[in-house]
Amino acid sequence: MDITEFRKRGKEMVDYVADYLETIEQRQVYPDVEPGYLRSLIPEEAPDEPEAYEDVIQDIERVIMPGVTHWHSPFFFAYFPTASSFPAMLADMLCGAIGCIGFSWGTASEATLVALLAARSRIVKQIQAHDPQRSEVEIISKLVAYSSDQAHSSVERAGLIGGVRMKKMSTDGKFAVCGETFRKTLEEDKASGLIPFYFCATLGTTPSCAFDRITELGPICNAEGMWMHIDAAYAGSAFICPEFRPLLDGVEFADSFNFNPHKWLLVNFDCSTMWVKRRADIIGAFKMDPLYLKHDHQESGLVTDYRHWQIPLGRRFRSLKLWFVFRMYGLRGLQAYIRKHVGLAKEFERLVRNDERFEICADVVLGLVCFRLKGSNELNELLLRRINGARRVHLVPCQLAGAFVLRFAVCSRTTESRHAQEAWRHISELASELLRGQKR
Amino acid sequence: MDITEFRKRGKEMVDYVADYLETIEQRQVYPDVEPGYLRSLIPEEAPDEPEAYEDVIQDIERVIMPGVTHWHSPFFFAYFPTASSFPAMLADMLCGAIGCIGFSWGTASEATLVALLAARSRIVKQIQAHDPQRSEVEIISKLVAYSSDQAHSSVERAGLIGGVRMKKMSTDGKFAVCGETFRKTLEEDKASGLIPFYFCATLGTTPSCAFDRITELGPICNAEGMWMHIDAAYAGSAFICPEFRPLLDGVEFADSFNFNPHKWLLVNFDCSTMWVKRRADIIGAFKMDPLYLKHDHQESGLVTDYRHWQIPLGRRFRSLKLWFVFRMYGLRGLQAYIRKHVGLAKEFERLVRNDERFEICADVVLGLVCFRLKGSNELNELLLRRINGARRVHLVPCQLAGAFVLRFAVCSRTTESRHAQEAWRHISELASELLRGQKR
Repeated sequence: MDITEFRKRGKEMVDYVADYLETIEQRQVYPDVEPGYLRSLIPEEAPDEPEAYEDVIQDIERVIMPGVTHWHSPFFFAYFPTASSFPAMLADMLCGAIGCIGFSWGTASEATLVALLAARSRIVKQIQAHDPQRSEVEIISKLVAYSSDQAHSSVERAGLIGGVRMKKMSTDGKFAVCGETFRKTLEEDKASGLIPFYFCATLGTTPSCAFDRITELGPICNAEGMWMHIDAAYAGSAFICPEFRPLLDGVEFADSFNFNPHKWLLVNFDCSTMWVKRRADIIGAFKMDPLYLKHDHQESGLVTDYRHWQIPLGRRFRSLKLWFVFRMYGLRGLQAYIRKHVGLAKEFERLVRNDERFEICADVVLGLVCFRLKGSNELNELLLRRINGARRVHLVPCQLAGAFVLRFAVCSRTTESRHAQEAWRHISELASELLRGQKR
Repeated sequence: MDITEFRKRGKEMVDYVADYLETIEQRQVYPDVEPGYLRSLIPEEAPDEPEAYEDVIQDIERVIMPGVTHWHSPFFFAYFPTASSFPAMLADMLCGAIGCIGFSWGTASEATLVALLAARSRIVKQIQAHDPQRSEVEIISKLVAYSSDQAHSSVERAGLIGGVRMKKMSTDGKFAVCGETFRKTLEEDKASGLIPFYFCATLGTTPSCAFDRITELGPICNAEGMWMHIDAAYAGSAFICPEFRPLLDGVEFADSFNFNPHKWLLVNFDCSTMWVKRRADIIGAFKMDPLYLKHDHQESGLVTDYRHWQIPLGRRFRSLKLWFVFRMYGLRGLQAYIRKHVGLAKEFERLVRNDERFEICADVVLGLVCFRLKGSNELNELLLRRINGARRVHLVPCQLAGAFVLRFAVCSRTTESRHAQEAWRHISELASELLRGQKR
């Protein structure tokens, strides 16, 4: 393909993308295919000779699309949103063309891990400064990290990778970790010879969008010399609205903070951002300087070498998308987007509350509604199975205080009131069918 | 921006990208700006109200481009190539539009780390199976991992992150680790109570594209029950050519293997691929299964849950680019591309060898030529400074057996013989100037 053909094919692809997004609502949100469906549709091996572009393009609908979960369908309500906007897509085209390698953040999971490794490195150095006889390995064997029992699975995995104990703190009626529980656990652990060094607080948990009480937890972490990392992967975007800023109170106690613009800030995947209070803590844990990566500005302080902040060496030029999106939406446009999603969640919450067969299982603070049929977990598992089986909308479940709960997360940029209404009508009909069947 | 405007703007962006790539040769390959140059060109804060798209686009040349290192300029010879091709760019447009989140590989650095963590988890389980009294922490404190002293800095960092000892093996005259050295080190380490568990072999090192002798090293690793990971980040792409397959002899002894199609296989950044001999080894080290990520096919064996294979949970739909590229180039096209780059490196090597002021510092096997002026390291540092200062071509250095060496890596898809010739003429003139100045 030469540059002349690229001009033609690129414009065709723009139209294909626009057509896809314009009519995405008409596609079945979740695929019907079984794992392995691709195998019979594509050859065993890459072709020896180049194929015609037309053949590739025809295969998109024949081969690829039948297996796609349409995350940007307005009927997609599973997990959390993944962002998509036209300016970000335009920026990504340019990013691909410039194709330079930054020396990033992968995702919030990586931020959690990096913060934990930095905290581990910091505490080891601190202890050794007072007591040079103690070995790194012996200190690490005494370390203990904490998170909420509602925290993302990647937090537990960070502990596993870092080779340290990770304790899950029990949460209160609002699924939040509070100061008292935390203080008690710390005292017990210290009494048994352990060294608390890291707490991963969550603002907006994955199961129910709960907020750990960082105004209580932060001062404890600071007093104990523990690293407090805040994982606000989803909820972080909402803090651009003044009315949601109080949810961020206590951030001043944090050592590091992470949120994912690729979730709820209209920046296409992937784009995850992290702040660190003292950069030396991070760099100390990761710095490596081979000659082929040295540069003139290394020690000048002018340059922030992000490669010392992360696991991979390279990164894409992701800030370009942020820049396009900030400029094309403006703060007002982005705030309006967040508020619209929160409004849709509140609207869905009202529909659920008006149906006495159902219950709301957690406060609806942002764009997530946790709900279930009053009754057994089996009943709700069955309902979810029917909802996802019908392929009209897509939801995922969570577990809250032992209950099997359905999560309705407002995800798509194009979800409107009518989609939420229609989703509710559909869910409520499936519930009626299910309950009739149970009576018989 | 609505969908109608996106159609228009998207097509304009295709033309901008095509224009950029068509005329990239005329741009200065390496920027003149100083770190911080951006600060005065952009506002302190994101705009409150949306801006006009025209204003954003105008700022690309005013704000962004002056700071860009043009990795796809045919005069870019630094590091290693980063891929770029029209089919991959088209696929990335579609990938952005579909915007689904796979649950990947970041880069080769991550592959190295993941392999090390899997190896660590495997050895701990094996030892505990025989001796359940030994704690994980105590076992880890005895572990030792190995790599070449030529290995990428990310290998050393993997050891740091995994909390294990990492030893750098000295290399022979060809900058390769050989069996004898390795065996001797292992015997010494075992005698002193350490537990060798992981060796990261490199096929195509970053400094000189050297190949560790895996036909000698592999059987040793297998006999010792050590994990052998092969990092072939750059050279891996060349193995699609039969004439380079012998360089891969011994791969059968490896537990895991990684290469980056985003380096030399025409797949735009980022796309890094990893194979593992026994998937259970990887999954065992990483698996976490919260309810919101459970799915019907979990235990069926039909699905490979890559989220258990990696640090981040999510990944982009990168296989789409591979598929476009394989189909649009065909194996023949890709082989021709690799051979062309190798041919250009050999051509440059001949030019260097014909100039007796210079010497070649390592075998030219693939697309990298390591060369230097006969003389002091200071002289060569000065030459490199002048080359990069002139901004006509871009190179980075390396250190080989104490010598400061210049690396000429054939990188761009559009580099032709005339670019290599011109680069040599330019370098050789700068050398003449430098040597004349030294005499005076």
